[in-house]
Amino acid sequence: MAGGRTGRRPGLSGTRDDILRAAREEFAARGFRGATLRAIASRAGVDTALIRHFFGRKDTLFRAALDLPETTSRLIQAVAITSSDPGAGERLARTYLALWEDPLTRSVMQSMLASAVGHPDAQALLARDFAAMVAEAVSHTSKDMPELRLTLAFSHLAGVAIARHISKAASLTALDLDSLVALVAPAIQQYLMGPLPGAR
Amino acid sequence: MAGGRTGRRPGLSGTRDDILRAAREEFAARGFRGATLRAIASRAGVDTALIRHFFGRKDTLFRAALDLPETTSRLIQAVAITSSDPGAGERLARTYLALWEDPLTRSVMQSMLASAVGHPDAQALLARDFAAMVAEAVSHTSKDMPELRLTLAFSHLAGVAIARHISKAASLTALDLDSLVALVAPAIQQYLMGPLPGAR
Repeated sequence: MAGGRTGRRPGLSGTRDDILRAAREEFAARGFRGATLRAIASRAGVDTALIRHFFGRKDTLFRAALDLPETTSRLIQAVAITSSDPGAGERLARTYLALWEDPLTRSVMQSMLASAVGHPDAQALLARDFAAMVAEAVSHTSKDMPELRLTLAFSHLAGVAIARHISKAASLTALDLDSLVALVAPAIQQYLMGPLPGAR
Repeated sequence: MAGGRTGRRPGLSGTRDDILRAAREEFAARGFRGATLRAIASRAGVDTALIRHFFGRKDTLFRAALDLPETTSRLIQAVAITSSDPGAGERLARTYLALWEDPLTRSVMQSMLASAVGHPDAQALLARDFAAMVAEAVSHTSKDMPELRLTLAFSHLAGVAIARHISKAASLTALDLDSLVALVAPAIQQYLMGPLPGAR
């Protein structure tokens, strides 16, 4: 699966990783619809035929580019909710927001967001992955209404990430990660663990 | 200012409103960068020259299309924070989320969002308007750190609106507006009125 990471055939491995990095950068900047194989090839310094050889079409490249082991596995571990965990909100807030701080994972998070907001096909691709992640997390939880809890928590965190990293709201960019996590952790904790007023 | 709304010269007034509505729909679907004057003209059933006559360039049309009196004035009234108001969070949550329920104002909110996520120029245009709105709201408040409070509240609400109306997360689309407002109002109230842990 991750054969390119073992270090054999460094030339080809480098090229494959170069394409994935270029794809993440293009998807982050232009979303799924705006990014073209030609622009990704140009950014990676390869021919579009090589991209097709490795990854097939744009939608399969999109999924491969977003499939960084660091992103979903870290999130799944963070959202494995147990029945009462006073640190769950802080842990999920830190894990999610930290993924936006590192340039490598930030490009993945931003690709997902730019694509999800802009294009129904990308939304469908991402919804499937998100649903799988939620199902995995839900299988570790004993709380009621786990989907609603996770959706509220992630939508809050996504909004904060947009304001900090895309809109660059000054009051959020001025904070370090610890301060930001401390600010939002109580609300995330409430969504994951507290009573949900008005939900049935 | 709103001469087109008085009912005189109904033909021209209708055309101008048709262009604005078509612009909101295109900006909502494709963002600031993706929407073209040609596509807006086609949707409105007019010539691009008429759009240029009324609105000049795409950026001035963009601002005109988003300048629905209903959107910003309702929000400014909702965020006029007084020193202690137990209903502020519920009121802002309801006002903001209700703007996403009505198809007319939803297209404005979605235009702002799709454009802000996708294009730096649109971000700059919107940041200026948002800063003016926040400054107006801040002038009515006596709380500490009003910008940070409003940014946290709006970023949370924007994330929820994305999940409900764009990603169409099932656990949120299943709720009526009252239930959704009841779920998020406590966190919004905390951001507007409560202590902010970790903020300096």
